[in-house]
This record gives sequence, structure tokens and C-alpha cells, in this order.
Amino acid sequence: MKQERTFWVVGGDLRQAQLAQLLARDGHTVCTYALEQGTYAAPDALVCSMLTGIDRSDCVIFPLPVCSAPGILSAPLSEQEHFLAPILDFLSPDQLICGGRFDSDTLHILSQRGLQACDYFEREELIVANAVPTAEGTVQIAMEELPITIHNARVLITGYGRVGKATAQRFAALGAKVTVAARSCEQLAWADTCGLKRAHISHLPDLLGGCDLIINTIPAPVLGRDALCALRPDALVIDLASKPGGIDMDAAAQLGRRVIWALSLPGKVAPITAGACIRDTIYNILREAGK
Amino acid sequence: MKQERTFWVVGGDLRQAQLAQLLARDGHTVCTYALEQGTYAAPDALVCSMLTGIDRSDCVIFPLPVCSAPGILSAPLSEQEHFLAPILDFLSPDQLICGGRFDSDTLHILSQRGLQACDYFEREELIVANAVPTAEGTVQIAMEELPITIHNARVLITGYGRVGKATAQRFAALGAKVTVAARSCEQLAWADTCGLKRAHISHLPDLLGGCDLIINTIPAPVLGRDALCALRPDALVIDLASKPGGIDMDAAAQLGRRVIWALSLPGKVAPITAGACIRDTIYNILREAGK
Amino acid sequence: MKQERTFWVVGGDLRQAQLAQLLARDGHTVCTYALEQGTYAAPDALVCSMLTGIDRSDCVIFPLPVCSAPGILSAPLSEQEHFLAPILDFLSPDQLICGGRFDSDTLHILSQRGLQACDYFEREELIVANAVPTAEGTVQIAMEELPITIHNARVLITGYGRVGKATAQRFAALGAKVTVAARSCEQLAWADTCGLKRAHISHLPDLLGGCDLIINTIPAPVLGRDALCALRPDALVIDLASKPGGIDMDAAAQLGRRVIWALSLPGKVAPITAGACIRDTIYNILREAGK
Amino acid sequence: MKQERTFWVVGGDLRQAQLAQLLARDGHTVCTYALEQGTYAAPDALVCSMLTGIDRSDCVIFPLPVCSAPGILSAPLSEQEHFLAPILDFLSPDQLICGGRFDSDTLHILSQRGLQACDYFEREELIVANAVPTAEGTVQIAMEELPITIHNARVLITGYGRVGKATAQRFAALGAKVTVAARSCEQLAWADTCGLKRAHISHLPDLLGGCDLIINTIPAPVLGRDALCALRPDALVIDLASKPGGIDMDAAAQLGRRVIWALSLPGKVAPITAGACIRDTIYNILREAGK
Repeated sequence: MKQERTFWVVGGDLRQAQLAQLLARDGHTVCTYALEQGTYAAPDALVCSMLTGIDRSDCVIFPLPVCSAPGILSAPLSEQEHFLAPILDFLSPDQLICGGRFDSDTLHILSQRGLQACDYFEREELIVANAVPTAEGTVQIAMEELPITIHNARVLITGYGRVGKATAQRFAALGAKVTVAARSCEQLAWADTCGLKRAHISHLPDLLGGCDLIINTIPAPVLGRDALCALRPDALVIDLASKPGGIDMDAAAQLGRRVIWALSLPGKVAPITAGACIRDTIYNILREAGK
Repeated sequence: MKQERTFWVVGGDLRQAQLAQLLARDGHTVCTYALEQGTYAAPDALVCSMLTGIDRSDCVIFPLPVCSAPGILSAPLSEQEHFLAPILDFLSPDQLICGGRFDSDTLHILSQRGLQACDYFEREELIVANAVPTAEGTVQIAMEELPITIHNARVLITGYGRVGKATAQRFAALGAKVTVAARSCEQLAWADTCGLKRAHISHLPDLLGGCDLIINTIPAPVLGRDALCALRPDALVIDLASKPGGIDMDAAAQLGRRVIWALSLPGKVAPITAGACIRDTIYNILREAGK
Repeated sequence: MKQERTFWVVGGDLRQAQLAQLLARDGHTVCTYALEQGTYAAPDALVCSMLTGIDRSDCVIFPLPVCSAPGILSAPLSEQEHFLAPILDFLSPDQLICGGRFDSDTLHILSQRGLQACDYFEREELIVANAVPTAEGTVQIAMEELPITIHNARVLITGYGRVGKATAQRFAALGAKVTVAARSCEQLAWADTCGLKRAHISHLPDLLGGCDLIINTIPAPVLGRDALCALRPDALVIDLASKPGGIDMDAAAQLGRRVIWALSLPGKVAPITAGACIRDTIYNILREAGK
Repeated sequence: MKQERTFWVVGGDLRQAQLAQLLARDGHTVCTYALEQGTYAAPDALVCSMLTGIDRSDCVIFPLPVCSAPGILSAPLSEQEHFLAPILDFLSPDQLICGGRFDSDTLHILSQRGLQACDYFEREELIVANAVPTAEGTVQIAMEELPITIHNARVLITGYGRVGKATAQRFAALGAKVTVAARSCEQLAWADTCGLKRAHISHLPDLLGGCDLIINTIPAPVLGRDALCALRPDALVIDLASKPGGIDMDAAAQLGRRVIWALSLPGKVAPITAGACIRDTIYNILREAGK
């Protein structure tokens, strides 16, 4: 990406501040808005208190998610509340509007005005890249919580999609005895190809008793009361599945099982890397748009 | 797979003989037909010279491909030629008919008679599992042909689908400096996630001059005359893409570039493993069919 | 180790309590003494308040280090202070006395009485095994402290002995770009063999500016003021070298460089694994002693 | 190594020719002698038919081994026989004389004349570096000989020194189920640290029956008649131990066991890499000698 461009980064948390800084370091002109308390992390970006000139930028980047409440920009690092609609009034159909998880109201407004919106959280490469900090965050939690090493620990991973693959690879690389439980024959074939033990998810009850750590990546009920009963009392469960999660938390509490529901790990454990993932995706979007 | 069943393995090469033996060792009753010269590899299977009783078996397994010529069973280890149609006359709608790459004529006959056919070469888990012997065969060729070690060799892999992933993983594990070149942002994100260097395929011309080994997995023209010119004279090219392949073979010959077009590696380098892949897939098919 | 034996575990911290429990779970009779507050972690061991019978055990295990002060047993989990000499009065020349880092006074007493002492911290296999929890603890610290992922982080490791090898392997397995800096040609050859970049330690000044994380394993001055100046301001330094360490801590403080001096990681991050390492070593000692 | 030097490469096989070429490509002046039929591989070196001027070079490099018979230079690529003594007459005490496995007679002559000799095959870094092509050659043989993939193959490696470590790492990286059998507690601890299964060599009889491939690296009798009987008939044995090897070859022949005794793999499978290993070691020798 040699061409120099102008970006506006509007709202967001520390990850967006890091994104602004990374873009500036790549030689682009970057303006931040509604990100005041994060500007220490983006010393090479301009801090703008008005939106004048935003329409002449190549790309405007909203945070993930775009809104914290209907019609309200997600801007935890700003000193005041910002309505989204007045911001959109400043934008131009010539520029690219990027954001993560636009709600339908916002999409409707954008479309009405002929603005070009692109949701970077629907991009496969961003979801794949985000699996890395998610997997690392899971390793970190396991290291912090378990009194044994990951090396030689018996780890069961349910699900072998993007996060399951990145997580299983890392635990195995650290010397854990990893078993992947999944339903699909294809996922099980991939697990074997990657050198992992594998089991059909229907065999889960037989596997649970021998595990030190269970990591769930399936967003569906996976570990109910019976399964939790079968766990060793000192086993740790980490649930990476988005809401409603895969573990019966009430049963776990009653049984005294240790369950950690770990959400949004990328922004927490590696905000700079998470910002870089968004930057790379935005570069891809721009290139594909011929900009 | 605890239930004992009866299988007929009809026609095929050494891989089918190994398949017959593996099924027999799992405790099933296995009859072979039109596989006479391969029976030494399947000592635990019955050798049948007539098809009597085939209709009472649970599953009949044809080779990959089913036919060597229109209407003719692929049976290189048989002492005589076998027409397919008379064999199909013996089969029953109660049993499962498996084969690899059924041609449309055969599928038509099977359908007319209400026979249940399943093409195991359309199963994703078989294609994934086959990527392992393909990747190993590629490592073997590279070791045989190059006067340097794979360790520290500079390897470029074009394409990052199933075969590209399995191959890149193995060369990197052996200490090669692997770069993956692909077009899709998703594939490039996966390559990075797996710890590999990556480059958009449009940068191929810049990459070629610094490589000791180029492995192509893309079934489309990838290396034309200009690209082949850019190669080091002592570089080796291995093309894993199915016909028509990805390399301009005429240009390569004129330029004196070393290109090896390696097809059908699984059956060649690891017939037992290749047979086991088919067996596992057939077990999956039977389980999903509720048989 | 099928033969059932009797062990006494005398003094020590949580690691010794875990050791007592692991021995008991292997089917041995285990008595603990001067470990009262740790007995919750060793439910299968007997808690003894007097030393009667200790002379009839096969093996007596003292902690690491044996003494917390001259003549005083290291017993942080005991409710009272214990002098070592009166305990030694109870021991018999027929049994094996194991401990970690016996001081010379204690060795002298043991020798005078004809007691058989063995220092398990002089056993190579224990030092090698301990490198694993040390390396994992280092990964954990790096994950906790850095705002980037280990994946693609630029990591410099100085020294390639036991801890350097175990640490480098793990960071590389997690996708870091690892460079090993060492003095010995042999260590540098090993680093290359294991697929790592390597540099002679004399090139350290050129390497430091491009690193996100520096891990020192050399117990000698490695990073002085000039080297610390050359670091990126946001780089992290983890010093694993035992006292006096390898980093000029005063200079680091003045320059505002982040340095974490991480000692005794095995007992902190993985007490059960650390206890198991001691157990395995004691089994080896017993076997070699023909007991 | 920026300083330009003059080297003479005297005698040897293709590996020495590659060495000459690599030195020349690094910018040094290189003369070859008694290597006529290998000069096609060293196009950038000078071919000398007389020794005039050899005494003014910085370093003279003899092959490995230096002599093919007492007093006779090892020179398989020369058109005539060369006595060593007259060559030594030309050398000077100011220059470094390198060679692999000098015999005692030659060392005596060198010493008498005050010549500085250095045996590069006594350098630890060369032995370590040579383990890589040895391990790769072993992988190649296993791939060529076995009808199964290395992936999921059950591999037993006896001994865990340099070659054992490099070999085990590569088979495990390719997905094999590797068990290391060794005698020393330290070696077994290293095997565990590297994520491998391990067993004391005394348990060898119990392990042999379940293996597809046995690789011996111990230069002592390891597999006698009883052990060979315990092998599966289709198992493959690769012996990497130098003479007299570790396998009872007579018993193996009688029992019909497949044993491949693979010696001198580096020069055979990767002559360029093997030449580069010698070059790097000679650079180290020169640097340490302050030249």
C-alpha cells in the first residue's frame, strides 16, 4: 500500500486508537474524532474536534460495533455522547465508509444517501486473523488458571472451525495432548491431517473424565449438567462461544465446576494486533474497490 | 464400527486390495472379485470367482475410477476384462454401492434400477485425508531431486487449498522457508495464521528468482514462459495440479527448467494409507445412511 | 515403579505437598511432617506430628532448598520453626535422604553419620524437565505484558542452553519470529538445526532495535546501559538468569525500560508439574541405587 | 566474513567441489587441485594442475577423510593418484591446514614441520549441522520404502543424541507417533521436553511389536535376534549407527526382516548443504584463530 491516503477514525476504543496510529505510521494522513482519551496511543494522528473536511478523506472508519445504543456512536474514549446521524450528514458518496457490525437502521440511512458502506466484520480474512489473538488469550487463561503445565496437559477442544483450529494448533505446539471433538467428517479429517487426535462429538461423555482442560468453540449447548458431572473436579472449562455460549452455567455453579466464559479476547489481550487486523482488512477492501 | 458386515470389493488396483484387507482385519466378511493378482495383499479376504451372493452383502465397493473405459470395469489386477453392466445386474436396492467417480452412464443405470450409489470421491473428508499422502509424496520428490536439504530451502507454494495447506505445513515443519502465494484474502489470512510468509499471487514475478523449489497446487495457468525465465536455473518445480496443470511444459522444456508433474501420489507413495482413507469414508457413509 | 514404598516428605512449600500427594496416588505410603498448612493439597498422605518411624521409611525427602537459614529447615507451611539437626538424628543409614541444594554443613553432618544423601537438584533430568514450566511461565508473562500477539512478534533470546532451548521452541511454535543470540558455535548450530534464526552474541547491538521482546537466559552481564538504550521504548525484557541476572537494572530504571526479572517460575506457575518432576527424579535415583 | 581470502581445496569428492564453489561465491579466491572431474560443479574456482603458490594461501582444505589409504590423498575425482607427503612439502606454517579425520601419521608429519592443522570433523557445530541432512535422508528412505504415510506411522527411535534429536523432531513434525527409547535419564527428559513419548531402553522388547519403523542411532548392539523376532514382519529398520552398526544383520537376513544400513547420508542426499556445513565450520575456525 504505497499510495498515501486520508483516513478518519471516528469513535471506538483503544483498538481504534491503535488502528489510527498504525495507519499514520504507514504514511497516511489520519484524523481522529470522538477518541480523545485514546489519542496518547496515536501520537502520529491529528485530533479533530470538528468534522470539517471529513468528506474529502478516502475512507472513514467506524468502530466495532458502530453503535453502543440505537443511534449512538460507540465512543467510550470520548468525553461526550455522539449521535451517529449528524456524523453521517458530513459524509460523501465518493468515499468508503467502513465499520464493524452496522445495525440495520444505520445501513438504511447509508443506503438512502448513496454512501458506500462496507462491514469489515463480515470479511473472512478478519475473522480468520482474529482467531490468533483469541487462541493466544485462551492459552494465557489456561496458563494462569491451571497448576500444571500446558505441556502434557490433556486438552479437549469442541468444534474445529477457525477458532478451534487456531487454538488446537497452539496447545498442541506447546506439548498438550489435544483431542478435537466435532460433528462434521470434514472437520475431523482436518484435525487428523493436522496431527491431532479426534473423536466424534457423540463420544464426548467418554472423553470428559480424562481431561484437564475443555475448550468449547461451538455456539450451541455442548456441556449440560450430565457432561459437567462427568468432569474431574479440578478440570477447567473455557468457553469461547459467543452468546448464549455452550455451557450450562447454572449447573456448573451448582456443581462447583470452574468455567471461564472468555469473550472479545482480541481487543483485550492484543489491542495493537487487533488494530492491525482491521487495518489490513481495510487495505484489502480499498484495493478490491479499486481505490 | 463394531457391527460386523459383509463387503464386496470389485475390481481396482493395489489400493483396493489393501482396502479389502483392512476391512477384513476390522472383523468384517470381505469378498474380492476381479482383483485376483492383488489377493496376496488381502490374505484375510475371500477370493470369489463368481458373483453369487453379492446381493446379500451390506456394501459393494467399486474402484476409483469405476470404469477404465466406457462400460468396462477398471480391473488392472484381474486376468480378464469385465463389463460393468452384467455386474450391476447382480446388485440389490437394499445394499449400498460405493465407487469413485462414477460416469454418467453408470449413474443412469444405477438410478434406473433403484440402486443406492454413493461416490466416495465427492466426500470432503476423503479429499482432505488424501492431501496428506499427496504432501508427503511431494516432500519425497523434493528430497530425491534437490542437492540441498529441505531445511533452510526457500520454497514457494502457489495456492492454499487442501493440498497447499498440507504441503506448506510439512515443508515448514522440516525447516524450509515457505512463502505461500494466493489470490484470496482468506487463504492469505490462513497462511499467516499458520505461521507462514504470504504474498498476493500478483507478486509472483518478484518472488520466483529467490526460490529453490516451487510447488504449484492451482489448476490454472500459473507459471508461463516469463515466470519460468525468472526462475533460477537450478530451481525445481513440482506441479500437483490435475490436468491441464499449471505450468507451461513446452516453455519449460525449451528453457531447460526442471518440472515434475506429480499426479495420483496417494496410491503411488502410500497405497495402504490411501486404502484406509477410503475405508474410513465408507464407514462414514454407512453411519450416515443409518446402516 | 510398581513396588510400594514408604516416603516421608519433610518441610517445604506447596510443591512438596503436591509431591506427597503424587507419591501417595502412585500407591506408596507417604507421611508428611512440618507441612501442616499444605496438607489440604495432599489428602492421601498421612500427617505426622512426630518423627517416630521415619527411620523405617525407604526415602526421606527434604525441600528445595533444604534450609531457609543455617541449620533451619525450610518449612514455610509449618506452624513452627524446625531445626534440621534434631531431624537428622532420627534418620538411618539404610534409607535414602533426598533434598535440593544441601548446604555444606548439612552434607558434613550427613556424611559423618554415614547417611546416604542425594541432591536432586544436581540431576540433569530435573534441570531439563524444569525448563518446561520456566518456558511456559515466560510465555505467560509475555502474553500478559505485551499489547501484541506472540504470533509475529520479534523475539530475541540470548543463550541457548536448557532454558533457552525450551523457551525458543515454544515462542517459535506460537508463531514468533525468534532469533537466538549465543557465543558458542555449537549452540548456534543447534539453533539452526531447530529452525531458528541465529546470530553471534557480538552482533547483539545490531539486533536489539528490531525486537519486541528480549529474553535473557545467560547468568552474566548481557544488557548494559548501551544495549538498553538501543531497545525500542515499548520493548519488553524478561530476565530468566539466576542472581545476579543479566540486565543492568539501575540503567533500565533510569531509561524507563520495562524489565521483568522472573525467578523460580516452575513452583509459581505449575506447582503440580514441578512436584511431578521431583517425583520422577526421585524414582530414577531409587532405581539407580538399586532400591 | 567480509575479508577476502585465498583457499586451496585439495582432493575430495563432490562435496569438496561444492565447498570450493560456495567459497568462491562468497568472494574468496579459490584454487582446486586433484578435483578435476568435479570442476563442473565449481565454475567460479580456478583449476590448478601444479601446487605453485599454495603456500601463499590463507587456508588449505583437505577432504573427509584426508587419506583413502595410508599416505594416499582421498581424490576420487582426480585422474591420477596423489601421495600426500609431497603435497605437504609445499605448505607453510603461516597458513591453516584443515581436513576431516587426519590419521596419526599425517598429524605427525604436520606437527614435525610446524604446520597448523585443524580437524573440522572434531568440531561440534559440524557434527550437529550434519545431523540435519542425516535426518532428512532417513525421512526420504522411510517414505520410499513404506507403503504407509509417515503421518500416523508408529516410529521408534533408539538413542537421543544429535542424530536422534534431529530425526525424532522431523518424524514427529510429519505427524508420526514417535517414541524415543534411551538409557540416560537426561536424554529421556529431553525427549519429553520436546513433546515425544519416551521409554527406557530396557522396555524395548515391549515396544517393538507395535512399530512400523525402527530407527537406530546407537553404535552398539541394540537389536539382536530376539528383538528382530519381535518385530512385525512388515516393519522397516533403518540403522544410522556407524560401523559396526546396531543390528544383527545375519539374524535379520535369516528372519527376513527389512533392514537398511544408511551411512554417510549428508554427502549423498544433500552435497551442497554438506559442503556449506564444512564452509561455515572453516569460517568459525578462521575466526577463532584470529585470521
